[in-house]
Amino acid sequence: MDHAEFRRQGKEMVDFIADFMEGIHDRPVFPNVKPGYLREMIPDCAPQDPESWEAVQADIERVIMPGVTFWHSPHFHAYFPTGNSYPAMLGDMLSGAIGCIGFSWASSPACTELETVVLDWLGKMLQLPECFLAGTSGEGGGVIQGTASEATLVALLAARSKAVQKFKTEYPDMSDHDIMSKLIMYTSDQAHSSVERAAMLGAVRCRKLQSSEDLALTGPVLQAALQEDRAQGLMPFFVVATLGTTPSCAFDNLQELGPVCRAEVMWLHVDAAYAGSAFICPEYRPLLDGVEFADSFNFNPHKWMRVNFDCSAMWIRKRADIVDAFNLDPLYLKHDNQGLVTDYRHWQIPLGRRFRSLKLWFVLRMFGVKGLQEQIRKQVGLAKEFEVLVRSDDRFEVTAKVVMGLVCFRLKGSNELNEQLLKQVNEGKKIHLVPSQVRGTYFLRFAVCAATTESGDVTYAWDIISQLAGEVLEGQNSQNMAE
Amino acid sequence: MDHAEFRRQGKEMVDFIADFMEGIHDRPVFPNVKPGYLREMIPDCAPQDPESWEAVQADIERVIMPGVTFWHSPHFHAYFPTGNSYPAMLGDMLSGAIGCIGFSWASSPACTELETVVLDWLGKMLQLPECFLAGTSGEGGGVIQGTASEATLVALLAARSKAVQKFKTEYPDMSDHDIMSKLIMYTSDQAHSSVERAAMLGAVRCRKLQSSEDLALTGPVLQAALQEDRAQGLMPFFVVATLGTTPSCAFDNLQELGPVCRAEVMWLHVDAAYAGSAFICPEYRPLLDGVEFADSFNFNPHKWMRVNFDCSAMWIRKRADIVDAFNLDPLYLKHDNQGLVTDYRHWQIPLGRRFRSLKLWFVLRMFGVKGLQEQIRKQVGLAKEFEVLVRSDDRFEVTAKVVMGLVCFRLKGSNELNEQLLKQVNEGKKIHLVPSQVRGTYFLRFAVCAATTESGDVTYAWDIISQLAGEVLEGQNSQNMAE
Repeated sequence: MDHAEFRRQGKEMVDFIADFMEGIHDRPVFPNVKPGYLREMIPDCAPQDPESWEAVQADIERVIMPGVTFWHSPHFHAYFPTGNSYPAMLGDMLSGAIGCIGFSWASSPACTELETVVLDWLGKMLQLPECFLAGTSGEGGGVIQGTASEATLVALLAARSKAVQKFKTEYPDMSDHDIMSKLIMYTSDQAHSSVERAAMLGAVRCRKLQSSEDLALTGPVLQAALQEDRAQGLMPFFVVATLGTTPSCAFDNLQELGPVCRAEVMWLHVDAAYAGSAFICPEYRPLLDGVEFADSFNFNPHKWMRVNFDCSAMWIRKRADIVDAFNLDPLYLKHDNQGLVTDYRHWQIPLGRRFRSLKLWFVLRMFGVKGLQEQIRKQVGLAKEFEVLVRSDDRFEVTAKVVMGLVCFRLKGSNELNEQLLKQVNEGKKIHLVPSQVRGTYFLRFAVCAATTESGDVTYAWDIISQLAGEVLEGQNSQNMAE
Repeated sequence: MDHAEFRRQGKEMVDFIADFMEGIHDRPVFPNVKPGYLREMIPDCAPQDPESWEAVQADIERVIMPGVTFWHSPHFHAYFPTGNSYPAMLGDMLSGAIGCIGFSWASSPACTELETVVLDWLGKMLQLPECFLAGTSGEGGGVIQGTASEATLVALLAARSKAVQKFKTEYPDMSDHDIMSKLIMYTSDQAHSSVERAAMLGAVRCRKLQSSEDLALTGPVLQAALQEDRAQGLMPFFVVATLGTTPSCAFDNLQELGPVCRAEVMWLHVDAAYAGSAFICPEYRPLLDGVEFADSFNFNPHKWMRVNFDCSAMWIRKRADIVDAFNLDPLYLKHDNQGLVTDYRHWQIPLGRRFRSLKLWFVLRMFGVKGLQEQIRKQVGLAKEFEVLVRSDDRFEVTAKVVMGLVCFRLKGSNELNEQLLKQVNEGKKIHLVPSQVRGTYFLRFAVCAATTESGDVTYAWDIISQLAGEVLEGQNSQNMAE
């Protein structure tokens, strides 16, 4: 494939993408395929000789598209949003062409430096405390991780390493594993499963603390747990607070948790994977108050800020805490400017890394702060529209405060009833939602996801849900009568 | 930014990329910038209002390119290659547009299914034993990880989990941490630093065993270590063997290590990050013999198989070993077909994942197996050409057997002399190399990296090295005379 061919094929792909995005409204949001559908559609081994671009291109619609869940369809309301946008795609195209691996400053200085500076930009947009910015002489700084789960794990491992050092000084007779066996971390019972998984990977105990009525982890609950656990001989070392939980978009009480962590010398990691993008709007920034107590903070521009996956932004108060934790420097990775500069390989689990800051830079510049704020406000507005529709219908209830672009709701009645409703909704394949459950109560999550979702799509979704609710309730009534 | 604008801008980017690739020969391979160069070239915060595409585009050459190390320049001979190609870029463009997150089958069935099938294709190209293929009823299967370091860590964590279970049955009085404190893994003193780092992250002891004269880890050395360590009460559980080490592209003796691991019930992970791509050529496949003893195997198509980073292919003999190790299933991630299908989130550290199999699929189809084999053979041939040049010059010696596309060489004489030579070479910025060191001997690594490297580029590099060697030696002689 030569340059001239790519000029043609690349442009065809650009048109394909634009056609695809323009027409996404008309694609079924959830695919109609059975497990194993794809294997039968393609050969069982790679071709010996090159195939033509035309053959490959034809298979996009034949093989791939029928099996795609369209996260950017205006009718996609499952999970949380994932970002995409033309500026991000342009940035990623450039990243692919440059194709450098940015494990050290020397392996491509621009790759490291743009990331540091653009994460300062982003930190300023969020009004993060100065200590998190790299600037020219800061001790903190930002890094792009792949996912929030990696950010949590990195924070946990750094905190573990620091705690082991600290407790070894206090208890010189204890071995590393004696200490690790007593380390305990805390998070809310509303935290994402990846937090508990990070504890499993990091081989430390994790205690999930009961959240308050509004599903927040509070200071007194943490304080009480600490006392209990210390009395048992355990060693508290790490707390993960969530701003915008996955089940219901609840917010832990950072202003209470922060001082407890500070007083008790525990690493505080704040995970705002979804909600973090909203903090660029002054009206939502108060939800981030208390971040000044955190040791690390993370949110995903690849969720709600138009940046294509993967781009999870993480800031560390003292980058030495992470850099020193797992620093191994073989000769083939050393370079002249070591020490003067950031070598991002020490900040993350993988060694290699792509030039991911390009897409973030393109998005920040081509939307501007105002453009991104508008997008957040619009989507929160759409969620509020949906909330009004739910509240106007006596058969339904809203089960959590609507703060961002997520509405948690259910039919008044049993979990089974709501499970049936969701099944009907998703089997219809006109819209797509996923459920959640809090304290035994099953509910549906309506997330405003795609940038293409408009007011009409919200009423479209509500009409479907509302009509199916009627059918489900009718089915229940006839069943009750028969019994 | 609307669809019409993207049609124009995307096509301009396609032309920019083609121009860039066509002209890469003329760019200086290593940038002439000082740490911190970039911060001064751009504003210190994001713009409030959107900037034009033209403004962003102009900054690519002004801000980014001067700071890039050009891994795809024909004069780049550092580290190991990283793949890129037009088919991979086209696949990534499509992946960006679809923009789905593939953590479960339901979150985008095509994303999961294509990956499983294409890794079967790739496994067949490598003639991997049947047990590693998913097929329609296999117990194994392949997955795309981000990097080889993640693959090593995933294997280690799964092996750790399995070992803890096993030893708990044998020693019911021991706690998990008692067991972990006794677990020990093995690798060669030639293994990549990421192996030792994985042990640190996983909080297990790692013993680096002495490699043989040809820098291979052998069966008897492993066997002896096991006996010693068992006598000390330690619990061996995991071995990482490398095929194609980073310092010198040495190969561990898999056919000796395999039976030892099997007999001693230790998880064997085989890391062929760089060399693995070559095993698609029948003449190199014997180097993979012994993989039938492995529990997991990994290589990076994103290194030497024209696939853009990140695409690290990993196969597991029994996928249940990995899936069951850290499986947490919250309701919002559950779906109807669970159990029937692969949910790749259980196979990896992050939760989210991109549609990375598209670029691999495009590459396999648009190059064909033969095209990829040609590429490997050509680059090994170029390394042999370089080897001949080194051997023809009495001042130099080749320090390791040239098996793949890497030549390890040095000036006969002191390490300092060779450090000086490398410094001169890299400061000239006409070619770029990195050094390595084995058992106290410092040497230079000449890797054939870019797909654009031709015979003329090899002689070009040699002429530079050879001339600078003369200057360095002359400098040394005059210094010796002066002393």
